[in-house]
Order: sequence, then structure tokens, then C-alpha cells
Amino acid sequence: MTAPPVAWFVVGPTAVLLLSCPDQPGVVATVADFVWRNGGNIVHAEQHTDPTDRVFFQRIEFELEGFAFHRSELAQVFDPVARRFGMDVTIRCSDDRPAMAVLASRAPHCLVDLLSRWHAGELAAELRFVASNHADHAELCGFFGVPFHHLPVGDDPAAQDVAMQQLLAASDIDLVVLARYMRILSPEFVAGFPNRIINIHHSFLPAFVGAQPYRQAHERGVKIVGATAHFVTAELDQGPIIAQDVAHISHRDGVAELTRKGRDLEVVVLARALRAQLDHRVLPWGNRTVVFD
Amino acid sequence: MTAPPVAWFVVGPTAVLLLSCPDQPGVVATVADFVWRNGGNIVHAEQHTDPTDRVFFQRIEFELEGFAFHRSELAQVFDPVARRFGMDVTIRCSDDRPAMAVLASRAPHCLVDLLSRWHAGELAAELRFVASNHADHAELCGFFGVPFHHLPVGDDPAAQDVAMQQLLAASDIDLVVLARYMRILSPEFVAGFPNRIINIHHSFLPAFVGAQPYRQAHERGVKIVGATAHFVTAELDQGPIIAQDVAHISHRDGVAELTRKGRDLEVVVLARALRAQLDHRVLPWGNRTVVFD
Amino acid sequence: MTAPPVAWFVVGPTAVLLLSCPDQPGVVATVADFVWRNGGNIVHAEQHTDPTDRVFFQRIEFELEGFAFHRSELAQVFDPVARRFGMDVTIRCSDDRPAMAVLASRAPHCLVDLLSRWHAGELAAELRFVASNHADHAELCGFFGVPFHHLPVGDDPAAQDVAMQQLLAASDIDLVVLARYMRILSPEFVAGFPNRIINIHHSFLPAFVGAQPYRQAHERGVKIVGATAHFVTAELDQGPIIAQDVAHISHRDGVAELTRKGRDLEVVVLARALRAQLDHRVLPWGNRTVVFD
Amino acid sequence: MTAPPVAWFVVGPTAVLLLSCPDQPGVVATVADFVWRNGGNIVHAEQHTDPTDRVFFQRIEFELEGFAFHRSELAQVFDPVARRFGMDVTIRCSDDRPAMAVLASRAPHCLVDLLSRWHAGELAAELRFVASNHADHAELCGFFGVPFHHLPVGDDPAAQDVAMQQLLAASDIDLVVLARYMRILSPEFVAGFPNRIINIHHSFLPAFVGAQPYRQAHERGVKIVGATAHFVTAELDQGPIIAQDVAHISHRDGVAELTRKGRDLEVVVLARALRAQLDHRVLPWGNRTVVFD
Repeated sequence: MTAPPVAWFVVGPTAVLLLSCPDQPGVVATVADFVWRNGGNIVHAEQHTDPTDRVFFQRIEFELEGFAFHRSELAQVFDPVARRFGMDVTIRCSDDRPAMAVLASRAPHCLVDLLSRWHAGELAAELRFVASNHADHAELCGFFGVPFHHLPVGDDPAAQDVAMQQLLAASDIDLVVLARYMRILSPEFVAGFPNRIINIHHSFLPAFVGAQPYRQAHERGVKIVGATAHFVTAELDQGPIIAQDVAHISHRDGVAELTRKGRDLEVVVLARALRAQLDHRVLPWGNRTVVFD
Repeated sequence: MTAPPVAWFVVGPTAVLLLSCPDQPGVVATVADFVWRNGGNIVHAEQHTDPTDRVFFQRIEFELEGFAFHRSELAQVFDPVARRFGMDVTIRCSDDRPAMAVLASRAPHCLVDLLSRWHAGELAAELRFVASNHADHAELCGFFGVPFHHLPVGDDPAAQDVAMQQLLAASDIDLVVLARYMRILSPEFVAGFPNRIINIHHSFLPAFVGAQPYRQAHERGVKIVGATAHFVTAELDQGPIIAQDVAHISHRDGVAELTRKGRDLEVVVLARALRAQLDHRVLPWGNRTVVFD
Repeated sequence: MTAPPVAWFVVGPTAVLLLSCPDQPGVVATVADFVWRNGGNIVHAEQHTDPTDRVFFQRIEFELEGFAFHRSELAQVFDPVARRFGMDVTIRCSDDRPAMAVLASRAPHCLVDLLSRWHAGELAAELRFVASNHADHAELCGFFGVPFHHLPVGDDPAAQDVAMQQLLAASDIDLVVLARYMRILSPEFVAGFPNRIINIHHSFLPAFVGAQPYRQAHERGVKIVGATAHFVTAELDQGPIIAQDVAHISHRDGVAELTRKGRDLEVVVLARALRAQLDHRVLPWGNRTVVFD
Repeated sequence: MTAPPVAWFVVGPTAVLLLSCPDQPGVVATVADFVWRNGGNIVHAEQHTDPTDRVFFQRIEFELEGFAFHRSELAQVFDPVARRFGMDVTIRCSDDRPAMAVLASRAPHCLVDLLSRWHAGELAAELRFVASNHADHAELCGFFGVPFHHLPVGDDPAAQDVAMQQLLAASDIDLVVLARYMRILSPEFVAGFPNRIINIHHSFLPAFVGAQPYRQAHERGVKIVGATAHFVTAELDQGPIIAQDVAHISHRDGVAELTRKGRDLEVVVLARALRAQLDHRVLPWGNRTVVFD
């Protein structure tokens, strides 16, 4: 099978600035002026001000063509602006393709969906490999032309966790996607990827933290089930939420049916969160996220 | 203002049997045969079997016209069937109008909606009064022709709780609706109305139990907010859930905006649950409910 | 009943510029610079570029306090910027309260909801009157302290249409809300209020244009029903859509049930559209709308 | 790759009767009695009465184990009941696996999803082959172990239509699924599979019939897009609707984005409809469907 096609809806490379700073007059004007004076054409700009903490957030995207500086110089030329307003800034280009790894366990649904979307060119990432604590998905990954690593847990869970970290490090992975990977990552693992591990949890968090959320949901007798994509932090299922969705259920739905209905949610919510992240639209902030449209 | 009209969509009085029993062969056939042999025409029948606990639930509705017995004799003539299968049965007629009281605090949205629906004939209940720990809604209730009682809390919350119980008892209230009534009911109060108090909680339970759920939701950074209508039990916000719904939110929504968006959810979810209850479609069972369509 | 309270979530008056122009470099920077140089603090800014027609849209909101000019001078001082880029601009202040009239027929649900929201301070408009082709709502409007005009259709529908126009003109009405007003407005009527009449249609347009959409929906056997709030144009149910929502239904839902479920949709969708309009977030453009968040 | 596993949630074979007849007393009792007297245990029963046309619909499911007759005799022994009430009846067993063919064109999303669900055992059908007017999906089908037929249209569309009919006939196909198959079937083709061809249309029908619904939706400026699964009849996009769903969109979504968001809807709605059909829960009736839960 050949390499995935370039997504057909990309029109031309753009630069994206994701920034936050204390709210203060002149920020919007100064950033817009910076882009304009240097020949950039702004194609999207969104901002948000948190009224309680008086923090300013912005995502500004402009065409690289015609811009006075090369993309490699962007951080440097923007630095005076960033310093002046005390900004946290990340700069990425729309055709940057972060190095991504997907971790999965036995359940195939999220993995199949991600592979299929990636193959269709919908996910702007370089998918370096899939890794799993089970051997099940080797054939599937082979079909899509993606390397597969089997790291069984065996008698030493801690060793497997370390091996996974080493595997990610060896491939210079930027972004880790947990596609129903049923292992709890060690604090060291998590610390190595701050706000760069996306997990899909099969409940509408903060309800039903931890194991078997569909069973918990059934026992509580809820009338909706949900799925939550979030960044992984040291505390289980407590990281910043990127996307959530729910489905209505009824007394007719047992745990098996909830599980089946939930799978469709998990697939869509994880894909939505991942796409937002790859579009550079997600700005984590404390335990929350600003997700620009 | 005149009395509310009889709802225009009622076609003729029916009897509704809501029953549960251990699952066993012959239940469906025996109940259907009971209705048929006595000249009843079944207009709706739904059943559910819990596969884990092997419990059978049924709602069966048949026209009273042509039935061999008067509605007042129904319980008695059905008793042999109920005994044979060890059934819990409640029998109500579609034109029974349970005596209902609505309790509210300051927030008007749920109360206005209930009064307006009741006045439009959408709620098949006899609304005996509205009571509140504040005086605010006297004029509103007067407009709709509903008696209003002001029971301030003052220095003795326990006394107010008792007074409210006495007020409900004095009016022979069957069903109590808490339309954003911001008092925690005493265990005695709750015990007097088993599965006959419906509350609207402004979160998708079990997330954000207790006070200020919109503030909790904002702080957790969720991307959906919800509302839950449930029967009140001794444990706060833990009773059987009747209906839930959610709305999507974003980082732009502060606590005030969540509160505003949530109001629309609360109104709709409470009305949906109340309507299900008044249609005799809700069968509480342990900490869950079977809500027939 | 006293006058409605000022909404509690308004923090301080702001100016809102809603503008559109051909997409061209420097627009964002120039507008932001205009605000900043004149001492304005931008609290919200959103923009959109239509990639097909290369049209630029923006909503920019800044605090009036500290701004170098009085609100009455805004249009004049911004005029050079507007001319330079060929902009269509409307400027409003957050505490402007447009003169609004609500037209209704017999169905009370949307009217009750609007009155109730207006009374709670949720709608930033001066509600000058309610008018109807029926007399039903006089008492309701009286309760909320809103003048009510009864303009019966009688033998001469055209005369009633003209009388309604005169009534609106006499009160200098800016915005007309059709809260299930079941009359088709004359072309002259519509022409007098370009993109200033909001209607709620009880279907997910463009499905089920015209009369009895719930009946049409039932006959087509759809599994969802909807409601659409839109600006009224000369062509029936074809104007720019502001907001839509839907609800799932089943074969069990007859026309009466669709009507009942649809009412809850109509109420919420109309309120959502009206609120967007009153927040100056709606920019009609051809037969579509840009609705900023 | 080995054959798909038997779905894990099937507990034991059951018989399902899907029936309709003029509404009349005694139907429910007689059918229930038929099952019970012959030793069957009813596990599900749902009924619906159309109040306008006075038509009765029922789905009744009972365990085959313990039933007095072999499954092959069911139609014959039930025949007296069916005759007595003038019933249309179809009888299927839960472990019947209808012979299914999937037709697709270039877009892979629905096909990948169906293959993946089928492979996971979620679809109780014998997937005999996939056929397409393009060659693209040969490798994909090979991976899942499903025969693939390429029937190009070439210069003679009518011949391709006939060839497809012959292919279906040669494999004794019961159910045809159009997974974004972009050909209009001939009337002869459709007539050969009455209510046995399921199509996914990428709009909330009846809005945007025909070609390029996402383009139509964009041009109309709607705020929601949808997908509709329906049986195919002679008239384009007019057949009985089985399932629908929608997603909210905004002015930011161009045709490409609508197409992308719509894909997720199409996948889920088609799978939901197909699953209902394979569970014998769909009863077409005129131009509508009764879809039991």
C-alpha cells in the first residue's frame, strides 16, 4: 500500500501562533501589526480572555507565502513581541507533521479508526508506529503500512512501562495517542510528555473515573453515557479535557450494549480531539483547555 | 383566569398497569389474556426483562370503555394474577390527576415553565399549590391561579422542614416536584414520599454532586454541562435517575454563561421527567428506573 | 410588577463593530490599531474569511471606558478605516437596547418564554409591545407589564397587515420577533425590516417549508424533527438561517406528539437566535449568516 | 485472517415474529398465548398501534429452546393465528445470518467501518462480497477476507446495472447495503429487492435530495447537517427512513469541512440502521418504518 495522500483540503502552508499572556491593552494590535508589517496575510484569528484570571489567549494563523522571514526564523523575530507582553508562545506551521505514536491494547475500534483516517490523509501527523501490550494488531498495522511493536507486560509491569518510554524516545515522538491503551502510565512516563499524551476515557468525566466506567454507569442507572478525550497528567483521569460527547441510553441497555454504543462515541471523540491538536487549536491552561474552533 | 383546559390529545380513559415480578414463563400471556377476556382493548404494551437479575417489568395500557369491571374494581380482580406471579403492581387510570405540589426557591425558570405547561393542559395533575422558602413567586402563582405558600426558613431550618411536611400532608399531596428548591430535605421528609419527590439537579449526575455544580463544572473544565431529574432519596443526589440531558459548552463559557445555558436544560429535563411520571411510564427499581416510551 | 432588572452579568458598556469587506491584507491590523491607539481595550474579537468569495467578516468588541471618543462619535471616527477597506459596518454598544416588538398568534409557548426571559433580564432589548391577530394573550402581557395590541384579521387581511406596519412604525421598532405568528407578511412589510424580522419555523429548514410542518414530517416518516430561526425575506421560509436544532422522534410519535416535542425546540431555538441578535453577534450575508460565538 | 467470531453478546437462539394487521381485540393475548402454550419464553415484546390507520404492529421474540416445534415449522404452526387476524408476518431466528452484499464507490469511510464492525462480530450477517464501480477497495476487502468484485461502468451504464443485479442474484443476496455507492439503481434493480436495499444519504432527508447535498447545505446556509439511512425505492431518496442523525455546524465550515464532519455521521447512521435491520427490528410500512428498540 502506498503512502497516504496529502490531504486535499490543504491550500497552502500557514504559520500558527498559539499564545497566552496577562491581559493588557495593545496585545491584539501589536500581534496583528507584526504579521501585517512583515507581509503576512491573516487567514484566521481567534482570541479569548479569561475574565476571572485576566489571561489573554490567542490563535493567529497567517500565510507563509509573502511573509518577510523564513519559517525557521519565526520564533526569533517574534521574540521581542513575546517578551514585551510576557507571552507563552508556540509556533507551528500547518504542514508540520508531528511525530506521533499510537498505543493500544486489545480493543480495535479506536485504532482502526485512527489508522483509517490517517490513511485517508485526515490526520496531519507522521504516524511512526503503533505499540501494544498485546500482539493482536500486528496484521492490521501491517495492512496500513505502519510499524507495530509488541511490548508484553509479563511479570514486570514497571519494565514494560520503561521499555515503552524508551521506544518513544528512540523515535523522537512528539505526540502519544492512547487509543484504549489499558495500562496506567508511570509518573515518569507522563512527566516526559507534558500535555502531549491524549487519552480517550469511556465516560463523561468527571463521572466514572477509573476502571469499568460502563459497568459503573449501568449500576448508577444513568440515562446518558459519554466519552472524554483529555491530556494525561499524573492523576488518573484528571487531566485537561479536550473533547467530550454523550449518547442517550435507556433501561434496555445492559453493560454490553453500553459498551457497544460507547465505542462509537470513543472513536468520534478521540478523532475530534486529535484533529484539534494536530490543527494547533488546543491551548492547555492549568487543568483546562482553550480549544479554538 | 379560568381553570386549565383538558389536554386536547387525550382520546378516552385508559387503565395502566405498571408491574414487576421475577421473570417466568406465562406472564405476558396471562396478563394479556386477563385484559382480553374482560373485554379490554390493549392500546400500548411494553415490557423489559433485566437479564442479570431475571426481573420482568411491564407497562400495559387498555381502554376502560368495554372493560367488564369498573375502574374501582381493577386492583381486586387483577389480584389473583398478581399473586400467582409474585407481582408488584400499581394501577392508575389515564384520567387520574395526582395531587401535586411544586416547591421552589428564588430561581423562577423551572417554576414558570411548569406553571405554563400546566396551564396549557400539558401536565395531567391537580396542582394544589406552590410553596417556597422565599416570597418572590406569589404574584406569578396568583396569575396562574395557583395557591402560593411562603414558608421562610428563618432561624429554625428544622421547623421549616416540618412545616413543609405538614403542609403537604394537609393537602394530601401525592407527588412533590422540586423546581430548583434549594433546601436539603430531612430524612423524615424524604421517607414520607418514597419515589414521589422529583428533583432537578443542575449537572449530569453522578458528576458534580452537591452545591454549585456549574462552578464545579467550570473549574473542572468540562466541555459539556447537563441536568438530571431524579427521585429524591435519603442520600443527596443519589436517587434513581429519570431523565438527563446535556449541552455542549466551550472555554468561552464562564460560570454565568454555564448557569444560563443550564437553565434551558433544567427546564426541559424536569418537564420530560414529570411528564413521564404523570403518564405512569416510570417504574423505579432499586436505584434505577425503567422509563417506558 | 416592577421593571425588569438590569442583567447581572453585564460588566461595563462596550462597543461592538460588526464589519465585512473584501479580504485584503492589513484589515485586522488596522482595526486593532484603531482601537488601541484610541485607548480602547479589546475584550473579544472574532473574524472569519469566506475562502470562496474572499470576503472578510469581523466582530470586535472593546470597552468604552477609557476610549478617546464618545460613543456618539464612533461611526464618524471609524469612517476613514471603513472607507479605506470598503467596509460595511454597523456599530452598537452593549447597553443599547433596541426597540423590539413581538408578534404572536394563538400558541403561547414562545411568547411566554420570551416574556419570562425578558422579565428575568436575559434579553437586552426594550420590549415596546406584543401584538397579535387574536385577543388571547392580553392578560399574560398585562402580567408582565407589556402593552398588548389586538389586530384582528377579519375580512381584510391586507388591511391588518398595513395596520401592523403602522403600529410598528409608530413605535420606532428596530427588531420584530415572530413568536409563532401565523400570518404571512406582505412584501412591503418585509421590505421595511430588512434582516430585522426574526421568525421561528417549526421544521429543520429547508425541509418542510410552509404550513403544517409537523404533519409533513409525520407523513414523510422522518426520525428527527427540528426548528429553525431565520430572518424573514420576501420568499417564504427562505431567509438567512440564524439557529437550528433538532430532536429525535420515533414511530410512536404522532402529529400531536411531534407538535408537543417541537414546542420545546421552538422555544429554545428562537431564544438562542434572539439572544445572538441582541448581542450583536449575527452578520447576515446574502442568504446566509455569520453567527459569532 | 480467520472468519469473524460469533458475537459474544448472543445468549441463545431466539425466534422473532415481526407482524402487522388491522387493530382488533385479542391480538396481543392470542400471540402471547400461542408462544406460551407451545413452551416458548418471551424475552422481548414490543407493539405499536397507529391511531390514525388503526394498524397494529408487533415484534415478539422468544427462546427457541423448549419451544414445542422446530424452527423450520414455525411459519406453518403460526399460520392459523396469522390468518385469523389478517396478519403480515415475517419470522426469523436470531442466529439467521442473511446473505449481505455491500456496494461502494470511491469513498472508503462507510465501507471500512462496515468491514471493521463485521469483522468484530457486531453485524449478524454473512457478508458474501463487496462490489464497486471502481477498483479502489480490492486490497482492503482482501485484508478482511471478503471477496471483491469490480464492475466498472464504462460506456454502458445500463449494462453495469444489469451485471450488478446478476451478481447479486448469483449469490442469493438477501440484503444490499449501499455504502456511499454513487450510482442510481434502475427501477428493475430496485424492484428486485423491495425494502431490502439500505442506502445512506448524506443529508437529513427530505432536505437536499439528490447530488452534492453538502454543497446544497452550504449554499442554503444551514446550521446543521445530517445523514439518513433509508430503504431504496423507485423514487430517488424518497424511501422509508430507518435512521437519521445530525451535527451542528457554523459559518466556519466550508463544503470540505461539511463533507468531513458528515462522514462521521454517515458511518454511524448507516451502522445503526443496518444493525436494526439485522436484529429484525425494522418493519417498513408504506413510506415509513416502525423501528422497535
